[in-house]
Amino acid sequence: MKQTAILLMHSPDQPGLIATITEFIHSNGGNIIYLDQHTDVDQGIFFMRVEWDLTEFVIPSDKIKEYFAILYAAKYQITFRLYFNDYRPKMAIFVSKMSHCIYDLLAKYTAGEWNVEIPLIISNHNDLKEVGKRFDIPFHVFPVTKENKAEQEAAEIALLFEKKIDFIVLARYMQVISEDMINRYPNKIINIHHSFLPAFVGAKPYHAAFERGVKLIGATSHYVTTELDAGPIIEQDIVRISHKDNVETLVRKGRDLEKIVLSRAVEKHIQRKVLTYQNKTVVFN
Amino acid sequence: MKQTAILLMHSPDQPGLIATITEFIHSNGGNIIYLDQHTDVDQGIFFMRVEWDLTEFVIPSDKIKEYFAILYAAKYQITFRLYFNDYRPKMAIFVSKMSHCIYDLLAKYTAGEWNVEIPLIISNHNDLKEVGKRFDIPFHVFPVTKENKAEQEAAEIALLFEKKIDFIVLARYMQVISEDMINRYPNKIINIHHSFLPAFVGAKPYHAAFERGVKLIGATSHYVTTELDAGPIIEQDIVRISHKDNVETLVRKGRDLEKIVLSRAVEKHIQRKVLTYQNKTVVFN
Amino acid sequence: MKQTAILLMHSPDQPGLIATITEFIHSNGGNIIYLDQHTDVDQGIFFMRVEWDLTEFVIPSDKIKEYFAILYAAKYQITFRLYFNDYRPKMAIFVSKMSHCIYDLLAKYTAGEWNVEIPLIISNHNDLKEVGKRFDIPFHVFPVTKENKAEQEAAEIALLFEKKIDFIVLARYMQVISEDMINRYPNKIINIHHSFLPAFVGAKPYHAAFERGVKLIGATSHYVTTELDAGPIIEQDIVRISHKDNVETLVRKGRDLEKIVLSRAVEKHIQRKVLTYQNKTVVFN
Amino acid sequence: MKQTAILLMHSPDQPGLIATITEFIHSNGGNIIYLDQHTDVDQGIFFMRVEWDLTEFVIPSDKIKEYFAILYAAKYQITFRLYFNDYRPKMAIFVSKMSHCIYDLLAKYTAGEWNVEIPLIISNHNDLKEVGKRFDIPFHVFPVTKENKAEQEAAEIALLFEKKIDFIVLARYMQVISEDMINRYPNKIINIHHSFLPAFVGAKPYHAAFERGVKLIGATSHYVTTELDAGPIIEQDIVRISHKDNVETLVRKGRDLEKIVLSRAVEKHIQRKVLTYQNKTVVFN
Repeated sequence: MKQTAILLMHSPDQPGLIATITEFIHSNGGNIIYLDQHTDVDQGIFFMRVEWDLTEFVIPSDKIKEYFAILYAAKYQITFRLYFNDYRPKMAIFVSKMSHCIYDLLAKYTAGEWNVEIPLIISNHNDLKEVGKRFDIPFHVFPVTKENKAEQEAAEIALLFEKKIDFIVLARYMQVISEDMINRYPNKIINIHHSFLPAFVGAKPYHAAFERGVKLIGATSHYVTTELDAGPIIEQDIVRISHKDNVETLVRKGRDLEKIVLSRAVEKHIQRKVLTYQNKTVVFN
Repeated sequence: MKQTAILLMHSPDQPGLIATITEFIHSNGGNIIYLDQHTDVDQGIFFMRVEWDLTEFVIPSDKIKEYFAILYAAKYQITFRLYFNDYRPKMAIFVSKMSHCIYDLLAKYTAGEWNVEIPLIISNHNDLKEVGKRFDIPFHVFPVTKENKAEQEAAEIALLFEKKIDFIVLARYMQVISEDMINRYPNKIINIHHSFLPAFVGAKPYHAAFERGVKLIGATSHYVTTELDAGPIIEQDIVRISHKDNVETLVRKGRDLEKIVLSRAVEKHIQRKVLTYQNKTVVFN
Repeated sequence: MKQTAILLMHSPDQPGLIATITEFIHSNGGNIIYLDQHTDVDQGIFFMRVEWDLTEFVIPSDKIKEYFAILYAAKYQITFRLYFNDYRPKMAIFVSKMSHCIYDLLAKYTAGEWNVEIPLIISNHNDLKEVGKRFDIPFHVFPVTKENKAEQEAAEIALLFEKKIDFIVLARYMQVISEDMINRYPNKIINIHHSFLPAFVGAKPYHAAFERGVKLIGATSHYVTTELDAGPIIEQDIVRISHKDNVETLVRKGRDLEKIVLSRAVEKHIQRKVLTYQNKTVVFN
Repeated sequence: MKQTAILLMHSPDQPGLIATITEFIHSNGGNIIYLDQHTDVDQGIFFMRVEWDLTEFVIPSDKIKEYFAILYAAKYQITFRLYFNDYRPKMAIFVSKMSHCIYDLLAKYTAGEWNVEIPLIISNHNDLKEVGKRFDIPFHVFPVTKENKAEQEAAEIALLFEKKIDFIVLARYMQVISEDMINRYPNKIINIHHSFLPAFVGAKPYHAAFERGVKLIGATSHYVTTELDAGPIIEQDIVRISHKDNVETLVRKGRDLEKIVLSRAVEKHIQRKVLTYQNKTVVFN
């Protein structure tokens, strides 16, 4: 595997931007292997993901960020992040009592499908300890009560920082994340909500869906923001139901949906293909 | 085509009900050509649609309702409707300015796909008059203002009754239907709402969907009740969108979705396959 | 959990059959908790799945089969199978080198979602031995070569019979099953084929799909018959692709599809909701 | 509406191509309003669609083709087509006896959704003459027999050329198109086949789908080539069916699917978003 750099950026739209940046890469010996861009015409915002082979690139890896910032970012008001494919981001999984999402994440991880490390699992319950054991991943239990919530989250944050966790996946974690943790991981906490948001925000969406008599149920994976179930949506999907379903079968049918939607979102995040702005996402192919 | 009777019923669930009713049909010379049933176990309600060939049935068509009411309905607390396949229900279409739904309805009607008559189209605008002409269907314009709304609806109702309209299809009719008309056509006014209800109730759902940054847009066909966009859902479907879409392309993609979802709901209604209870539907296959 | 009996049957269609059988259950103290039926009008075949609570049923469990056979099956030419919900069928999993399907099956099994036992895994390779260990399920390796195939399969069959295996799931098992084994497990070997059958029968369907330039890829779960990839289809689904995909991303996208389609088919089989006839299935809801 | 130019191109992939072409547009006063590109890494082919506002572009419209050919196409081995948004392409519709596809095309056309002209309809039957009348479009009947086929097609071609038809849509036209006509309209004849190709090539795909017992039916829109049902696929979609369906209901369900899939393909073609190579398509968003 050759080393590549991945640039994710957005800026005010302006003529010649693609030409300028591809020329920067090209003229310095970089070979572009991926380029996708999007222009939000109404807002006048330009988004781009470009990845290039560093083999012949004349700017050293650890200088690219600085060069790009000085040569282009300031000039064109570009907000950007730069990644390298040889760094494996560190992902923490938070779970409660349901195992379907975490099993799917770990099966993909174990099979080597994702360029990621999972140094730990955090839970507010003991129920899924066994899952940690099966996959040899440290499983930390932080039982949360009204009284100890702030304290427990502080301990969790300490652990996350100690392990240098880059992003967090809430795999049906049934606890509201505090503002403090969200601010430390902005657009880096991925949740799965078991409804087609914005329908059925909050608790017990399958009960609400059953009550309303909908003909499809959905699942939504989004970044966590301080407003409940209102963060930028990364992925959604639905499955058809009928009058023959009750709450129990909705829950059953929803499980496959939830895990697939969550895994798709996590995969896009790992691949550095998600850009966020104004509470929305650009998800490149 | 042989004459058939269609019985749509629901009742408190009780042992032996299918046996009793199929025996009633069978022992009187009826040949069952369709039977589908559903039991809502939680609520203890039994639903059934049964259709039988009347060729050898010993009870005369015009007496079946009476016989069934006296012999079974009272005894088992059955709520039922009885239809005959040789009656073509009369359907009115209401439109405003957008033509995609009405064209789809009329294309199916003209091709003879539906056992229905469409004696008239009602609109609050002149824009689609031409569509009525193309298909030789009287097109009545009732311009509605705040001041004349009650009066105009009264005139519409008079026309609907004069033409013996059985049910109404709102094919993107951009006017709230008054309580009076709804009460005269309970569960007989089919609307298409351009969102995945209950998300984005009310006006401008595509704008709201775009604002929220959803990854799928939906359409919902439902019976109109006095609460806006809250009636029993007959059919829903979705189409995938992305960050590349703006409100204009959502509207464009939504058109095919809306018309298909509406047509599916109308078809089920015409086939007498929709049962409503407690603001939900049972839709038989 | 109350004990129930499940009757799966088909027979020549004849008037009064539902009435007769529901009356049999009802008059003997059985409480029907599920009934679904289907009539193939063209072929004149009637299919039914009925499940009833045995708590008050006057015929002892171990006599029901005999009574039904003598009282009804002979008379109405009924082909039937009778199951009890308190028997957990024994399922064997066959795998080769890819883990996505088996992980999904075992995650569901371990979470207690399925009324089934999995006493063993069989493989023609060592690659997934670890998976067996993680889930504490005996993992038997039978390396198959051209020379030893008959012998190895005989050993497999011996093991399957010793463990009283009821049905087999081929979770991306990359070996053609011999006629002998198929005949011992008729309509009891469930395969997942990674294409939308009958398109792309045989090896390397993702390569073939890529070559043909299709816009959707599919997966098909079916019972194994002696004709390759031609057995009765239980479940199919698709996922959208585009010109941006290559064989590698098709394989990647296909994995989630394959495992979900296979799991849905296995679940229906476990629930005794699949009936086969004339190389097709009736799959009840 | 401002005048724009649309460039559709492919070429051997080479570094700096996007930069070069966007620079060409930019430095000559063009404002890019759409750019999408795709690189087939395995084949080393680069594809691009770029559209730019001509208001300030210094090269006159009628010279752009020449300038681009001389300055870039030869040098980089670029195959390209150049379009202008103020030209409305001329589309002919071919039909036989089924009206669902043509009604959908004409409803969209009449509503002004497509930048296209439809000067004529051609049929081998009289059945849909009325449709031409309803929409005021000349309807030409060319009854085709084995004996007169060559002659009739020659007359059709003469008419198509006289009316300067740019492309042809086969809206369920039940006649094989001759090689001569295909060669005159290469990748300009769009067909709808009522199956998920390559499954069920040829006649009666719904019968074949029913026989095989599939759980989904599909439709495929593709460019017509001399090999039957084997041309480059533009769009496909599916709809779920079940054991309750027979051939008649498959045909019924397939109608909505066919028309939507065909309309999507036609729309992409009209928008100049389809590129073909090696019997495949690149379809830009």
